[in-house]
Amino acid sequence: MQHGSVFQRSMPDSTPHSQAQSAADADMPRATDRILTGDRPTGVLHLGHYVGSLRTRVALQGRCDQTLLIADLQALTDSSGRAALVAEHAEEVALDYLAAGIDPALTDIAVQSRLPALAELTVLYLNLVTVARLERNPTVKAEVELRGFARDIPAGFLCYPVSQAADITGFRATLVPVGEDQLPMIEQTNEIVRRVNRLAGKEILPECRALLSNTPRLPGIDGRKASKSLGNAIPLSATNDEIRRMVRAMYTDPGHARASDPGRVEGHVVFAHLDALDPDVDAVAELKAHYRRGGLGDMVLKRRLEELLEALIAPMRKRRAELASDRAYVRGVLREGTARGDAITHSVLRDVRDAFSLGAPL
Amino acid sequence: MQHGSVFQRSMPDSTPHSQAQSAADADMPRATDRILTGDRPTGVLHLGHYVGSLRTRVALQGRCDQTLLIADLQALTDSSGRAALVAEHAEEVALDYLAAGIDPALTDIAVQSRLPALAELTVLYLNLVTVARLERNPTVKAEVELRGFARDIPAGFLCYPVSQAADITGFRATLVPVGEDQLPMIEQTNEIVRRVNRLAGKEILPECRALLSNTPRLPGIDGRKASKSLGNAIPLSATNDEIRRMVRAMYTDPGHARASDPGRVEGHVVFAHLDALDPDVDAVAELKAHYRRGGLGDMVLKRRLEELLEALIAPMRKRRAELASDRAYVRGVLREGTARGDAITHSVLRDVRDAFSLGAPL
Repeated sequence: MQHGSVFQRSMPDSTPHSQAQSAADADMPRATDRILTGDRPTGVLHLGHYVGSLRTRVALQGRCDQTLLIADLQALTDSSGRAALVAEHAEEVALDYLAAGIDPALTDIAVQSRLPALAELTVLYLNLVTVARLERNPTVKAEVELRGFARDIPAGFLCYPVSQAADITGFRATLVPVGEDQLPMIEQTNEIVRRVNRLAGKEILPECRALLSNTPRLPGIDGRKASKSLGNAIPLSATNDEIRRMVRAMYTDPGHARASDPGRVEGHVVFAHLDALDPDVDAVAELKAHYRRGGLGDMVLKRRLEELLEALIAPMRKRRAELASDRAYVRGVLREGTARGDAITHSVLRDVRDAFSLGAPL
Repeated sequence: MQHGSVFQRSMPDSTPHSQAQSAADADMPRATDRILTGDRPTGVLHLGHYVGSLRTRVALQGRCDQTLLIADLQALTDSSGRAALVAEHAEEVALDYLAAGIDPALTDIAVQSRLPALAELTVLYLNLVTVARLERNPTVKAEVELRGFARDIPAGFLCYPVSQAADITGFRATLVPVGEDQLPMIEQTNEIVRRVNRLAGKEILPECRALLSNTPRLPGIDGRKASKSLGNAIPLSATNDEIRRMVRAMYTDPGHARASDPGRVEGHVVFAHLDALDPDVDAVAELKAHYRRGGLGDMVLKRRLEELLEALIAPMRKRRAELASDRAYVRGVLREGTARGDAITHSVLRDVRDAFSLGAPL
């Protein structure tokens, strides 16, 4: 999944900076919604995470119940050989959340592998889904291809839509931020919800809706998909020097050799970043027009972006450094968020066990 | 699995009554062995269970550490629609165990669905096994065919060798009673054991050995495979009337129309039962010779078997009735066995989480 995000590839425009269109009204958060989202801890978070999801999560705080799940178990489904890395990054992702403005008084941060009820729900739900159904899942198919797994996919990977259904239902989530390509996951979850409710003879689990996003995906500095492994994404903990170096290296328009040449805006990585981050929409539109006419050098754009990024990232970096020196606080945040997650996932597990007639105490 | 048994189809001849050959010495129980076996609670136990496994478990008590797992979760992998039935039978199976002579002071009886660490181990192990590997499992293949699942097998069913590996390793079992056809399950478990140990960089899980049996499978009264659904197996709680009725209906030799005719012993259901149960091996051999020559009526054999069965089953039935009226005792036995199982499975889970670098407390 892009940006290592659990359920989503991008996020809706509920933030001041976003230039994207509104998602359909039906998908807008309601005060009664419970939102579940999160990230697979396979590295530190970068600007793509911020634009795609993190700033929306910050904006949603206090508007509805929200849990961020650090999906360390899901990260193992295609990275069991990188287990040590995953464990190391769980805390780093929490640091990134807090540094970016997630307030633990408003948003729970929970660690998936510390919630045993999710494993129990997964094992129960596996009985409600056929192998053929999992193999038809377009998201699984696409990711199998992306990762070159062929028939040798780990069983955990084939089953991860079931594990996601356990996450979503385990938190009684009603709204799940996803990209279009993750809609099959929502459909799979709701199939399981309906089967469990039929088994129970009443509605014990709510169906969930997708919170769709129209925000375009932020490209990496080389114009390719942003990826930790490619090193082409700006970390949220970047120094000013790193920001400058990466902005200077950004892919622009190779046909725009001299400042006086007319240039192309499409595929121009600096403009993609300005679209995502510059609050002055009119100024960006004017810069685009100027660039197209000719007479505007890339360095003007890059300096503008550098300033924006430094202003955005500097306070995060400062806060991150403070938090990094107070690991006990960060662990406390995770412990408390996970404890609240444990209570709700166990309450769901009790209901689901009842549905499977496993409920009676011995 | 035959008789609803979890890991085995039949059992070794470590009991006074058995006529079968010794299993290979390598597979014989050692005092240091931990044995894990059990049953899927899809009905009350019958004579096939007794001959195939239960009497061996009684004989093994006190010789090594032994746990009987009531595999209610495994029963759901192909019976999620029969969940209520499975739950109801979990306690019935415990009653059958105790009635047949299982001593809770010597053997733990634990309920699978009450051991959350097993679900967590299953979810972790799913990352260590490929889908292709599971599909190649001959036991899974055979059972898929038997159940007519085709491609629509529940994911839980495809994954059940992984769940069995969780059971076996969760109890640190070193010896697992199986039939020949279940050997692939042992191999799959040991593959997972080796992968976990490699991940841990040390041996945290023991490999397990199969305790192979040469005891022939006891046929149903109609000569077909004994099966609860066919109603062709004598329940361990049968009344004398039921025993008599079922023995009288037993398939013999259709070519043996008159007592004076020579008869065939092969496929003769009464002889199959005498072979399994009659302690007087010489007398049975003599009866077979007489039957082959001609001059021996089926009723002589049937009366002999009736007497044997009444003597075997009457005390079980009596004890079962006593226990059935003291459900609190039976539940206490399950609670205590499950509590001991919870302790050991959680100690294994801690080790395995460490191997996956998930161990550090928050």
